[in-house]
Amino acid sequence: MLIEQIQSPADVKRLTLEEMKELAVEIRTLLIEKVSRHGGHCGPNLGMVEATIAMHYVFNSPEDKIVFDVSHQSYPHKMLTGRAEAFLHADRYDDVSGYSEPSESEHDHFVIGHTSTSVSLAGGLAKGRDLMGEKGNVIAVIGDGSLSGGEALEGLDWAAELGTNFIIVVNDNQMSIAENHGGLYRNLEELRQSNGTCSNNLFRAMGLDYVYVGQGNDLAALIEAFRQVKDKEHPIVVHINTLKGKGYELAEQDKERWHWSAPFDIATGELRHPFTAETYDELTTSHLIERMKQDPTLCAITAGTPGIWNWTPERRQEAGRQFVDVGIAEEHAVALASGIAKAGGKPVFGVCSSFIQRAYDQLSQDLCINDNPATLLVLWGSLSTMTDVTHLCHFDIPLLCNIPNLVYLAPTNREEYLAMLDWSIGYKEHPVAIRVPVGPTVPATRPVPSDYSELNKYEVVNRGKDVALLALGNFFALGESVCRLLEAQGIHATLVNPRFISGVDTALLDSLQADHSVVVTLEDGALEGGFGEKIARHYGPSAMRTLCYGAKKEFADRYDAQEFLAENRLVDTLIAEDVATLLHA
Amino acid sequence: MLIEQIQSPADVKRLTLEEMKELAVEIRTLLIEKVSRHGGHCGPNLGMVEATIAMHYVFNSPEDKIVFDVSHQSYPHKMLTGRAEAFLHADRYDDVSGYSEPSESEHDHFVIGHTSTSVSLAGGLAKGRDLMGEKGNVIAVIGDGSLSGGEALEGLDWAAELGTNFIIVVNDNQMSIAENHGGLYRNLEELRQSNGTCSNNLFRAMGLDYVYVGQGNDLAALIEAFRQVKDKEHPIVVHINTLKGKGYELAEQDKERWHWSAPFDIATGELRHPFTAETYDELTTSHLIERMKQDPTLCAITAGTPGIWNWTPERRQEAGRQFVDVGIAEEHAVALASGIAKAGGKPVFGVCSSFIQRAYDQLSQDLCINDNPATLLVLWGSLSTMTDVTHLCHFDIPLLCNIPNLVYLAPTNREEYLAMLDWSIGYKEHPVAIRVPVGPTVPATRPVPSDYSELNKYEVVNRGKDVALLALGNFFALGESVCRLLEAQGIHATLVNPRFISGVDTALLDSLQADHSVVVTLEDGALEGGFGEKIARHYGPSAMRTLCYGAKKEFADRYDAQEFLAENRLVDTLIAEDVATLLHA
Repeated sequence: MLIEQIQSPADVKRLTLEEMKELAVEIRTLLIEKVSRHGGHCGPNLGMVEATIAMHYVFNSPEDKIVFDVSHQSYPHKMLTGRAEAFLHADRYDDVSGYSEPSESEHDHFVIGHTSTSVSLAGGLAKGRDLMGEKGNVIAVIGDGSLSGGEALEGLDWAAELGTNFIIVVNDNQMSIAENHGGLYRNLEELRQSNGTCSNNLFRAMGLDYVYVGQGNDLAALIEAFRQVKDKEHPIVVHINTLKGKGYELAEQDKERWHWSAPFDIATGELRHPFTAETYDELTTSHLIERMKQDPTLCAITAGTPGIWNWTPERRQEAGRQFVDVGIAEEHAVALASGIAKAGGKPVFGVCSSFIQRAYDQLSQDLCINDNPATLLVLWGSLSTMTDVTHLCHFDIPLLCNIPNLVYLAPTNREEYLAMLDWSIGYKEHPVAIRVPVGPTVPATRPVPSDYSELNKYEVVNRGKDVALLALGNFFALGESVCRLLEAQGIHATLVNPRFISGVDTALLDSLQADHSVVVTLEDGALEGGFGEKIARHYGPSAMRTLCYGAKKEFADRYDAQEFLAENRLVDTLIAEDVATLLHA
Repeated sequence: MLIEQIQSPADVKRLTLEEMKELAVEIRTLLIEKVSRHGGHCGPNLGMVEATIAMHYVFNSPEDKIVFDVSHQSYPHKMLTGRAEAFLHADRYDDVSGYSEPSESEHDHFVIGHTSTSVSLAGGLAKGRDLMGEKGNVIAVIGDGSLSGGEALEGLDWAAELGTNFIIVVNDNQMSIAENHGGLYRNLEELRQSNGTCSNNLFRAMGLDYVYVGQGNDLAALIEAFRQVKDKEHPIVVHINTLKGKGYELAEQDKERWHWSAPFDIATGELRHPFTAETYDELTTSHLIERMKQDPTLCAITAGTPGIWNWTPERRQEAGRQFVDVGIAEEHAVALASGIAKAGGKPVFGVCSSFIQRAYDQLSQDLCINDNPATLLVLWGSLSTMTDVTHLCHFDIPLLCNIPNLVYLAPTNREEYLAMLDWSIGYKEHPVAIRVPVGPTVPATRPVPSDYSELNKYEVVNRGKDVALLALGNFFALGESVCRLLEAQGIHATLVNPRFISGVDTALLDSLQADHSVVVTLEDGALEGGFGEKIARHYGPSAMRTLCYGAKKEFADRYDAQEFLAENRLVDTLIAEDVATLLHA
């Protein structure tokens, strides 16, 4: 295979056009094979094969620097920059990450996994090059779906001021993860239909020079365009029209399904390990759809990720104007929710823990200072969901629980979650965020109240003595398990479901001082700035001893969840051991 | 005066065109008079007088809803909506806030003080109106300077999809706080020069309908334009060309100086209470300019607020390409700094505490996961600087100190600050943020090291026993004062300068257990999620008692700083009292 001879981009430059076409076929075959066995981003990579070969043919990486936005489309680049082995051999699939990664190669310049960052990051490389008095092309590669994000638009606007070499390749595959949303996509369509010649042009309106390539999967056309812009001493956009999923028919047909996939059968597209248990994501959406039928003012919002909470195309259609996809634009989504709530509507914004941090200022200013009663569903918040460093879901608790006015809830089971969701939709006093539990749904084993308006009121599940466990949300089951282990040692512990991440039940905490000497907090997230520290501070002036469990401060990457939990002593036996030691100290 | 007869917008509708012109003159006189005595936003309000009168003449507020971006320009609106008394009488100046404020009037819909939020918030009102089955115009008023912010661009892009009534008034006064930066401003210029007819049009490229008003301070032209768009059943931009500072000659001449002003003499423009002591902001900029002369790779960055750290137009010119104003675009600024650092340059991004929260995701993803050695200067971080709820500088510690890899420093005096700044510029291991002290500079009274690469190493300033005070940054002097009060009671306290907000000196903390029973933390910011809670958690399992001082969780508004500190027991006598009580408990 040709790919086996490509050790670096220098080897691409030696190929003929025909050989490059053959190379493209090989890359596609390997991509489909790896993703089908290992899981990963499918459609974005398949669409960018020719453009990646052409960039490496024309430019001289790493002197010329290519920055891939969100890096969902960087696998072909990895194959051409000395990392083909990680696609050729199943036992080496894990040699590389699913994202751009400087520790793997000098051809990668940043760890990138969040969207809409490439233009600004590459702009920094270009400005740095100028300050250092160096030369070379800097190229940002950004998908059309990423253009709706504020950081990308800020970067595009700024780019015109740089005044020196800066190439922005807009990979227009006419899709975000799902379909695109926003007015600028009409302009992209106009540009495609006019072969880049229509008079109104978003990029030119941003002050940028512009080139259009209608055949974005044609190597000769791409090479010509890249040669044309190489070494240009001003910022320029190269808008290429590509086919997402190209070369895998199923992915060409259903682009949303094949943006990313868990392992699948290549012939049928069926998942190898279909997930059949009921999930909280699924439960949320089916529940909201039922409620929408009764209440036309209820409105679900997503920022470009409907799939993560099972808003399938059919369900989106069913919800009609009661479902809003704002595109990748979390800041707008939060402010929109605040405005809808102010107007009397009932917005429910569902967002992944890793992405809600893209809208901190909007949460604080637009939503919480205004105290508008929107509902925010924080999905996948846990140490055990996404384990790539760019997608960690560890930080939502510190981020949200310290914002005044925001009520942040942590349900512990299916019925409690639904009760909290229903309550939050009707609640008019404050914005409410709910940390949606992760994994298969767990039924309630105790009665669940329907009203949570007595804020910061914790639930005492078992009243024991000596030691109390405050077991938050996902870690309630861990708390139960620790209690059982302690019971076996003759320690009759108190078990508390705090319910509220954002506040302290001071009356309860103070009452525990009568017959408890140790309080333990368990939270499924980063420890610093989180829930447990509030408890430790509350008891600071007292004789109560506190033990806070959660993840230590670090950007962990591609970890095994069980090992990671063990390293942080987030294991029932270790916690029970610590408690027993402290009680007997 | 006519203004005395305006109790609500209904009274505006009764005026003739000539009377409205007279009203405009009166409003300007009152604006200049109030700002000259009270301080406030000057230029933005003066430019929007006619447009505000025309909006209230044409639309029917509050059924029609007007949302003012950043609300620097909302004083004329306040005067026309029942709040003129707060501009007519000096003793009632404080009846209204400097920003839009729903608690004052049904004509204000949100508390707004951060930039670039109006389109999204008003978009929410429009979507909410549609969900509720209601009618009425929704109008966002946004300045040209605010357009560079990501949230505004996200909102503009989304607006086209709404498909129902939504009017976006772009108040183009050709200025941000300082001059505008970004390619889109070339397009605005082209639009002005072509009377709105040039073929390339940013707003149309975003999918929006568009109307241009060349004479944005002409009542008749404005009334005609607003009548034209009123009740339109699709989103439309009304681009009005206004004169910032109109009617006050000094403000028309020097728009940057007169964006906002402290109290001044109307005839000369001189400040009534000029600030003559050396400030840390001034010190920073003069120091950086000197260093830039030696090091062409050093680069200062601002996001549209050069004035807050004394980057005057002359100094910006002197720094040349080593000074970058990205416009109001904090997200881009952080990513740009990361890219420059990656390329080997030395970026220093100076940003107000209240605004750094606009870029949390970029701090986490673009900067800290990549661990690029940029320097971030957090300005004005304190409970005592800005006291409007939208501009609180309380939250930077919880926001920054919990991000892995980021070193967050709190200098306690002039020499320590400069040493930390110099060290951070040369440091290559991690990104460094410095919480720049507030107020006049304070000279060092003890030697200051030049190297801070031994991370989380606290300075023991006085070694005493029984009680130790960890007095962070701005509150070091408070710690000294508490020590003196305790000394007078025979308690010889240990005083520690923690230096590092982002980490715990576990060796020191553990060593204190030998002869201390109480540890006190003092931080000039919000308590929850901050520095003190880390100390409380560290000591949780031990017998050490901890007392954490900082501001309790709330969105305080327009408070008296001394009273606020007292309410939070941030007073030397109160703290000494608490310590003595706990020691003797």
